[in-house]
Amino acid sequence: MGAADHQLPTRPVVGISEVGPRDGLQSVSAIMPTAAKCAWIDALYAAGLREIEVGSFVPARLLPQMADVAAVVSHALRLSDLTVVALVPNLRGAQAAMAAGVHRITLPVSASHAHSLANVNKTPQQMLTEVQQVVAWRQAHAPQVRIEVGISTAFGCSLQGAVLADDVVRLAAALAAAGVDEVGLSDTTGMANPAQVKRLFARVRNEIGQRTGAAHLHNTRGLGLANCLAAFEEGVRTFDSSHAGLGGCPFAPGASGNVVTEDLVYMFEAMGVHTGVDVQRLVQAREVLSQGLPGEPLYGMVASAGLPRDWPLSP
Amino acid sequence: MGAADHQLPTRPVVGISEVGPRDGLQSVSAIMPTAAKCAWIDALYAAGLREIEVGSFVPARLLPQMADVAAVVSHALRLSDLTVVALVPNLRGAQAAMAAGVHRITLPVSASHAHSLANVNKTPQQMLTEVQQVVAWRQAHAPQVRIEVGISTAFGCSLQGAVLADDVVRLAAALAAAGVDEVGLSDTTGMANPAQVKRLFARVRNEIGQRTGAAHLHNTRGLGLANCLAAFEEGVRTFDSSHAGLGGCPFAPGASGNVVTEDLVYMFEAMGVHTGVDVQRLVQAREVLSQGLPGEPLYGMVASAGLPRDWPLSP
Repeated sequence: MGAADHQLPTRPVVGISEVGPRDGLQSVSAIMPTAAKCAWIDALYAAGLREIEVGSFVPARLLPQMADVAAVVSHALRLSDLTVVALVPNLRGAQAAMAAGVHRITLPVSASHAHSLANVNKTPQQMLTEVQQVVAWRQAHAPQVRIEVGISTAFGCSLQGAVLADDVVRLAAALAAAGVDEVGLSDTTGMANPAQVKRLFARVRNEIGQRTGAAHLHNTRGLGLANCLAAFEEGVRTFDSSHAGLGGCPFAPGASGNVVTEDLVYMFEAMGVHTGVDVQRLVQAREVLSQGLPGEPLYGMVASAGLPRDWPLSP
Repeated sequence: MGAADHQLPTRPVVGISEVGPRDGLQSVSAIMPTAAKCAWIDALYAAGLREIEVGSFVPARLLPQMADVAAVVSHALRLSDLTVVALVPNLRGAQAAMAAGVHRITLPVSASHAHSLANVNKTPQQMLTEVQQVVAWRQAHAPQVRIEVGISTAFGCSLQGAVLADDVVRLAAALAAAGVDEVGLSDTTGMANPAQVKRLFARVRNEIGQRTGAAHLHNTRGLGLANCLAAFEEGVRTFDSSHAGLGGCPFAPGASGNVVTEDLVYMFEAMGVHTGVDVQRLVQAREVLSQGLPGEPLYGMVASAGLPRDWPLSP
């Protein structure tokens, strides 16, 4: 303990990509007012987060929670050094996101045929075509925007059951070949285990190298942090997580429980792996979240138990 | 996935030592009737558990929950191949446990001076002397009984703060030299992190080799399973956990949350690491626990979310 764990940090070793304002808010029925979203994003930023998925560009009739996404993006763009990310399901959403000025867009592409149809009403192959169109549009109109794909149900699907690793690797290769900058793996339905996380990330990295992206892992069955640890040991350095564990996937029955950002940051910081995020301020920011979403249950063990005595341990 | 994860099991790769009937029951205020304890132990056994800490030999005026421990031991001894374990705080308890016929006794020895005084009103050095007396008694009267020590607060203490790894290693060496068969490490107050778990188990194993014992890890701050994974990767093959997460340590403020046996078994089995335990039957056994402790909150993610589709995956 002590010195070995807590060298003076220079720059973050792992990046935490906060998805609460998108993944979390689209999974709750209440609609957070725009000003409250901006206040929450400000609080997350103040805690040290430097990559936030602030919303999704989808038709407001489908997700009224996201009707104000352009205004939220506009606010977030004022925070210096913040990478502003938006989820888009298709070319039209990508065009709107690029017009709004986001730094990065992320598209969900399911490895599971059944989940893909349920989630975006397209097959994985049709989504690949959509991604190719997004890449072409980006090249022509907004070459500075990064494109990321998270492969949903990469570790299993509650509709289809098992998902073959071969299918995931093939999909990752096709996405990289299409010009996607980063391809991450998402445990949409909480079926991943640490051994599988290591194997699959290793295979994907072997196939697409530096384009291997973030781990988006859920805590549905309690393995969220163990799976993050496994991914970290396999070389993953970007992790999606949700403040207070808000969110999940409404189209994957039984799937809930994003990894809680506070707990994830706590794990890495306790290990001496610098995240750039202050876990105490992150816990305090739950108050801001609660003000914007009164009565919504918040999750997280560190917030319940409190930080250990003498935290942070001195170097 | 599939074949690689699920070879036909021969014998368990990891042993799960269920501590609920001791650690759990001594932490709740209700007293479970003897018949209910026996029914619960039977259900745990039926789920495949083959090592159960069934109670502690302590004065009934201190822990009335354990007044019937000899009767519970007597019942458990009828279950074939079950290793019956009891916790004892001192020589007198050890004598009673050996007279009752347990296969193994476990003694808690704190690495933290403050926790040791609070927990057993003895310094760590005084506890070492007590352990030496227990070993001597065992040699003379019950040489077949195994003696295990769990080093409490090995990863930090909510009273003392940081605990030096050097202190833990020195204590482990002294205990092994005293004739203790196995020395485990306990995260009594939920302060361990995966990097620390690996480092400390590696150092202890380097010092006492095969006498390195179980990992007893808590989920206080959400890292329970990640810490178990880290210990497993470091070579630990015995894990303490508590059915439905019952229990904690009443003398360590803020410390609660044993690792949940159901979730731990699920993690290992999902990884293809055979435990010999059927997680479905373990989840079903929660009903038996509830009948014996009406109204007591039960924890665990797998029980809430359910097992994944197609579980167990076919080999």
